[in-house]
Amino acid sequence: MIKNEFYSQENQGPYEIYELGDFELEDGGMIPDCKLAYNTFGELNRSKDNVIVIPTWFSGTSKDMEPYIGEDRALNPKEYFIIVINQIGNGLSSSPHNSPEPIAMDNFPNVRIGDDVRAQHKLITEKYGIKEIALVVGGSMGAQQTYEWAVKYPDMVKRAAPIAGTAKNTPHDFLFTETLNEAITSDPGWNGGDYRSHTEVADGLKRHANIWAVLGLCTEFYQQEKWRLFGVNSVEEFTNGFLQPLFQGMDPNALLTMAWKWQRGDVSRNTNGNLEEALGSIKAKVFVMPIDEDMFFPVKDCEAEQKLIPSSELKVIKSLCGHFGLFGGEGADYHNQIDHYLKELLEVPVNAEACGK
Amino acid sequence: MIKNEFYSQENQGPYEIYELGDFELEDGGMIPDCKLAYNTFGELNRSKDNVIVIPTWFSGTSKDMEPYIGEDRALNPKEYFIIVINQIGNGLSSSPHNSPEPIAMDNFPNVRIGDDVRAQHKLITEKYGIKEIALVVGGSMGAQQTYEWAVKYPDMVKRAAPIAGTAKNTPHDFLFTETLNEAITSDPGWNGGDYRSHTEVADGLKRHANIWAVLGLCTEFYQQEKWRLFGVNSVEEFTNGFLQPLFQGMDPNALLTMAWKWQRGDVSRNTNGNLEEALGSIKAKVFVMPIDEDMFFPVKDCEAEQKLIPSSELKVIKSLCGHFGLFGGEGADYHNQIDHYLKELLEVPVNAEACGK
Repeated sequence: MIKNEFYSQENQGPYEIYELGDFELEDGGMIPDCKLAYNTFGELNRSKDNVIVIPTWFSGTSKDMEPYIGEDRALNPKEYFIIVINQIGNGLSSSPHNSPEPIAMDNFPNVRIGDDVRAQHKLITEKYGIKEIALVVGGSMGAQQTYEWAVKYPDMVKRAAPIAGTAKNTPHDFLFTETLNEAITSDPGWNGGDYRSHTEVADGLKRHANIWAVLGLCTEFYQQEKWRLFGVNSVEEFTNGFLQPLFQGMDPNALLTMAWKWQRGDVSRNTNGNLEEALGSIKAKVFVMPIDEDMFFPVKDCEAEQKLIPSSELKVIKSLCGHFGLFGGEGADYHNQIDHYLKELLEVPVNAEACGK
Repeated sequence: MIKNEFYSQENQGPYEIYELGDFELEDGGMIPDCKLAYNTFGELNRSKDNVIVIPTWFSGTSKDMEPYIGEDRALNPKEYFIIVINQIGNGLSSSPHNSPEPIAMDNFPNVRIGDDVRAQHKLITEKYGIKEIALVVGGSMGAQQTYEWAVKYPDMVKRAAPIAGTAKNTPHDFLFTETLNEAITSDPGWNGGDYRSHTEVADGLKRHANIWAVLGLCTEFYQQEKWRLFGVNSVEEFTNGFLQPLFQGMDPNALLTMAWKWQRGDVSRNTNGNLEEALGSIKAKVFVMPIDEDMFFPVKDCEAEQKLIPSSELKVIKSLCGHFGLFGGEGADYHNQIDHYLKELLEVPVNAEACGK
């Protein structure tokens, strides 16, 4: 196990740990004493029907979702019991660097989106006895998990809002993610995943960050100097002073574990590869919410999937930050759009629509 | 000097060499006995006013432009004298791997787009006595040189058609190109530019190719399996069997020389940084021709520049191959669009419009 302050309670907390026990994985293998890190906001009501589940994005943690939650927001803890659950491998839940042998570091098994959702299902049913989820909402890999929730547990999930992500990963995204991986694994310091400290992979993590600087944003972000939204005064400060240190603080194997999962996200694994059948089986009311300037989850891809979901609508978010619009750098301009659509979605009476009409 | 068969007459020829002599560079330094490799099609007419100049794109050579030229095309050698000129550093013209000391390999100086255009101007004026160019047309870095031609020699260039490129490189493109560079320079085999064979940098060139696979194409290219246009039967065959070997055959320092130049392409260097003034000074009739699915020279960026050019029109090329539409993989679907617009442009009577009205 490797110590990495980035994932500490001081930096990412407060978060709680749920012990899943030995957790079998879709691709074979098992995580002994699997741990899910999560955080909750608000109170579970007596009928246990005020639940909102939020899975996390690539490289993200429960902490990243806090700006989405507040008494002035759609995700209102005075009204809802909100559970933000860290995906396996993200550095807080069971991950390569924080797991003991025999699954430490390069021995950490392959985990799939479906594993995450089954683990999250165990947490909320076993610990809280929850049988109904008012809303699952997540961005990017959080959107992948959101779709997986809606397909795997169609009677349980009443509403779903995948933001800037797809139900089935595209071949283009697979290749993009591969370049992120190669930036890390090409660093001799990575050493096949068997490094002593993430700082030994600083060069690879820097290159990883630099690829994000291209695909994570968009041309207009830089043309209009929107990096100023992140409190910096130049492109160099944005890349060298913000993005690079951010990713350099993270664990390389954690990023690779999440990336492997992201590349293979596909709800049609539940229906023998039939995407139409998988998305057609969703009973939730779904708002598909791509970001207009997203370079790798373009609106077109998200819209094609939305059309396969019976009770769904396309709600395009405008953001000159592209995919990193998710970070909320645009403040109210971004969050007001998210809140507007999520409020509208939460007001939809779902039980009448649960048959998919 | 390093032998690299990729750049041989057998693979890239026939091409001729023009000896520029000692060629001073914008950024200081000099290329002694600078050589321009070029190829011509058709005959120069008596009034020397049937000239078309075609500069080359990043990693490209004069050979790559051959599909654009033909008796059934706008670029018709029965009508025009067509000169395709390889940019400095592309592996055919003076480049790191084919230059002797003191400018061999890692000692090769920085070259700018402006240097290329001055060198090309010397070739066509000194060797052929040409005073008027009917059309300059080029794609990507060829578009950068096309813009530079129109700004540097406004009375000489009658028409210009920059395809899938910009007059001033965008900050986003700079960052994209940096990831291409880092893929190469992070390879220990690159050795600061002092390798013995390009094969020692095979890993870096592979990663370089893999980044091209993401940004060079687009999501729809892969969704619709358009890689079949390149005669392959799977994504893996397209990346591992086509793109990777293609770039692995090239010289790493050549790619880095071109990339440095690409990153800093900017016609406003001619007007003390005033882009409006530079583009406003163009007297040529200009068709700005971005590709609709281009991920890094998006239509928006090209259109913003087009609006600053007095006698110009925006002509958007449709291609699901994105930027690599330039390779013409879509055959007639692509080339017919190019020909249609170039024929229209070549029919515009320019002398009446040369005042910019």
